[in-house]
Amino acid sequence: MEKFALGTALKNVRKTTPLVHCITNYVTVNDCANALLACGGSPIMSDEPLDVADIQTICGGLVFNIGTLNAQTIEGMKVAGAIATKVGHPIVLDPVGAGASKLRTETAGMLLDNYDVKVIRGNMSEMKALAGAAAATRGVDANPDDAVTDDNLAESAAFAKALAEKTGAVIAITGAIDIVADANTAYTIRNGVPIMGKITGTGCMLSCITAAYAVANPDMLLEAVVAAVAGMGVAGEIAATRMQPVDGNASLRTYIIDALFNMNARALEAVARIEEV
Amino acid sequence: MEKFALGTALKNVRKTTPLVHCITNYVTVNDCANALLACGGSPIMSDEPLDVADIQTICGGLVFNIGTLNAQTIEGMKVAGAIATKVGHPIVLDPVGAGASKLRTETAGMLLDNYDVKVIRGNMSEMKALAGAAAATRGVDANPDDAVTDDNLAESAAFAKALAEKTGAVIAITGAIDIVADANTAYTIRNGVPIMGKITGTGCMLSCITAAYAVANPDMLLEAVVAAVAGMGVAGEIAATRMQPVDGNASLRTYIIDALFNMNARALEAVARIEEV
Amino acid sequence: MEKFALGTALKNVRKTTPLVHCITNYVTVNDCANALLACGGSPIMSDEPLDVADIQTICGGLVFNIGTLNAQTIEGMKVAGAIATKVGHPIVLDPVGAGASKLRTETAGMLLDNYDVKVIRGNMSEMKALAGAAAATRGVDANPDDAVTDDNLAESAAFAKALAEKTGAVIAITGAIDIVADANTAYTIRNGVPIMGKITGTGCMLSCITAAYAVANPDMLLEAVVAAVAGMGVAGEIAATRMQPVDGNASLRTYIIDALFNMNARALEAVARIEEV
Repeated sequence: MEKFALGTALKNVRKTTPLVHCITNYVTVNDCANALLACGGSPIMSDEPLDVADIQTICGGLVFNIGTLNAQTIEGMKVAGAIATKVGHPIVLDPVGAGASKLRTETAGMLLDNYDVKVIRGNMSEMKALAGAAAATRGVDANPDDAVTDDNLAESAAFAKALAEKTGAVIAITGAIDIVADANTAYTIRNGVPIMGKITGTGCMLSCITAAYAVANPDMLLEAVVAAVAGMGVAGEIAATRMQPVDGNASLRTYIIDALFNMNARALEAVARIEEV
Repeated sequence: MEKFALGTALKNVRKTTPLVHCITNYVTVNDCANALLACGGSPIMSDEPLDVADIQTICGGLVFNIGTLNAQTIEGMKVAGAIATKVGHPIVLDPVGAGASKLRTETAGMLLDNYDVKVIRGNMSEMKALAGAAAATRGVDANPDDAVTDDNLAESAAFAKALAEKTGAVIAITGAIDIVADANTAYTIRNGVPIMGKITGTGCMLSCITAAYAVANPDMLLEAVVAAVAGMGVAGEIAATRMQPVDGNASLRTYIIDALFNMNARALEAVARIEEV
Repeated sequence: MEKFALGTALKNVRKTTPLVHCITNYVTVNDCANALLACGGSPIMSDEPLDVADIQTICGGLVFNIGTLNAQTIEGMKVAGAIATKVGHPIVLDPVGAGASKLRTETAGMLLDNYDVKVIRGNMSEMKALAGAAAATRGVDANPDDAVTDDNLAESAAFAKALAEKTGAVIAITGAIDIVADANTAYTIRNGVPIMGKITGTGCMLSCITAAYAVANPDMLLEAVVAAVAGMGVAGEIAATRMQPVDGNASLRTYIIDALFNMNARALEAVARIEEV
């Protein structure tokens, strides 16, 4: 991938301020909203079935995040998903905890089957659950056995490409090594710091940001997803440099969103570590 | 307006610790609670129809915030609104996203028609939607075309007074220039900084704080609303002075609530820029 | 209590990363998740009746927090509570606002009657409401008349022991002076700082952390609860030392979670002020 695609993708977000409709969990929703604002997008949250059609209509994209889903939000996802699919707004699916409960796994599958999901962003355990593999998800975190490592990189990339082929979506599997793939091409992204796993919401935030990138970059979706994923990793690295000995995960959360806010094309391109697998 | 009214309004909040019942969206609810505590009030959140009557009864005021409303919270608003109206607790309406969806616009109208709303706090697009004008709300942000500027100040103030006349509520239209008006008098408040638009929740927080000010200042409601609005702007200015180059919107959010916490009557009166239009 | 029990309890949490299923209010849920991560646990939030059985099954413990409860979350509590009781996962009840509404008081009672609650963590007003006394809860804060002081310490400890006897749960009554008791033994914990009352969520966070401690320390439950309560107080004290004049309650919140993140056995044991009553 040409490095300059990353900066272009970022600039397109800042230039167009994509309005992203998020149907997301109530745990990290505030961070999602502030992360969207930080990256240059604009958030609207709405999950009531009677509200989502109008809201989705005025937005550019849609996020399905299945953390803390309930009967009402599932209905809201259906109504909003139908509209987004019909008018061609990109949909990002974040299958939080897929594999951890039947409801989550089935809802993720239902959303994939019925709506035109353009990007799926999750950890490897969730992705395996989506793929129908016997994943042993550890709650909302990836099972350590599922970690992408240098040893299983080729296999993991092949899995991502196959899932992209099967679902028609760009696949973003995040972890110590991130993989972003469509059916033909897979990239690794080696940014970020381990302490990011000690705050809730980095995945959720990234999914929302990814939607903003997808809306703003319709002609370069794969590159846009890579840019969003790399951007979150770079933000984590910048945040880590601000950590003082007394700081902990709460400060890190603040610093990451701050870093997203201050990110620019040059910094992103300079620090991103991306390779085709 | 006499400047000392601002300080008196603030002191009355700190002296009486008004208990404010918030039926509000799940995006910014934590910031609303901490902002209420910061300003000297005390928050309770409850939206379950079976819970809100008891909760509203022990509180001094009520906030209706229609972001992320759903069928259940609308019912909760009705039950709580009936009690607040009956016993004379001030109600503040925050019409988040009115104009962006039929459900939001109609719910805001229903609340205005049936309950004794004392203050409406929103952006100009939302206010136009409430007034029945053809507003083109951009999601939960104001349409730039609706911005209050020096060029349309007289017209905007007249609109606010007319809406106050029509609804019987004090109107607080916030933006780069804020307008607070009752049917007879309109003030502009020129505090705050543009970067406040880059965090979610400043409007929601302000609506909750306004309720605390309304509860604590029953005999000077217009002044109390001006004080609350000016206080949020001043807090934004103070917060902006703390911003370091690495800081972004997440730090700003923290600094704003901190500034609300440390606000005192003297600082508020010294920095507030208020003029009758 | 041997001081080293505190450090052991903390180390057991860090060693085992207990997965805690929280059915909790949407006001402080993000802080609860980050506080659980900070202390060494891992959070999952889920309240949908169709989701909670699977989620509770893969977790080690359960938190019932009745702030912002609604008809759906009550059903979710029942389903999850039945499983936790059956398989022996420790349940922590946080009776937020018990005494402030009939629904909250009755729901807390229903949960106590039907599920094997191992720990109850609340303020004295909430605890009195649970005990059936005529408590005058001031919303979600304790009534000042209910404060535990040196003057009523023996009486308060006796109340805590009696409630422990009646409910079969370890009782943690938090305030300026905390009391932790089972039917036979009561301890006071004199840590923390008054400004902690100016942020929302310290109680909710503590209840979630307590669940992590209970899961990780099945053979020393009383000591584990004391360690969790003392740890939150110590975190508050550490956080207070970081406060600059411009800082307020928002910064304090960040500093408290940071302090939980950086807490170690030695610091906890050195600073905790625990006495048997």
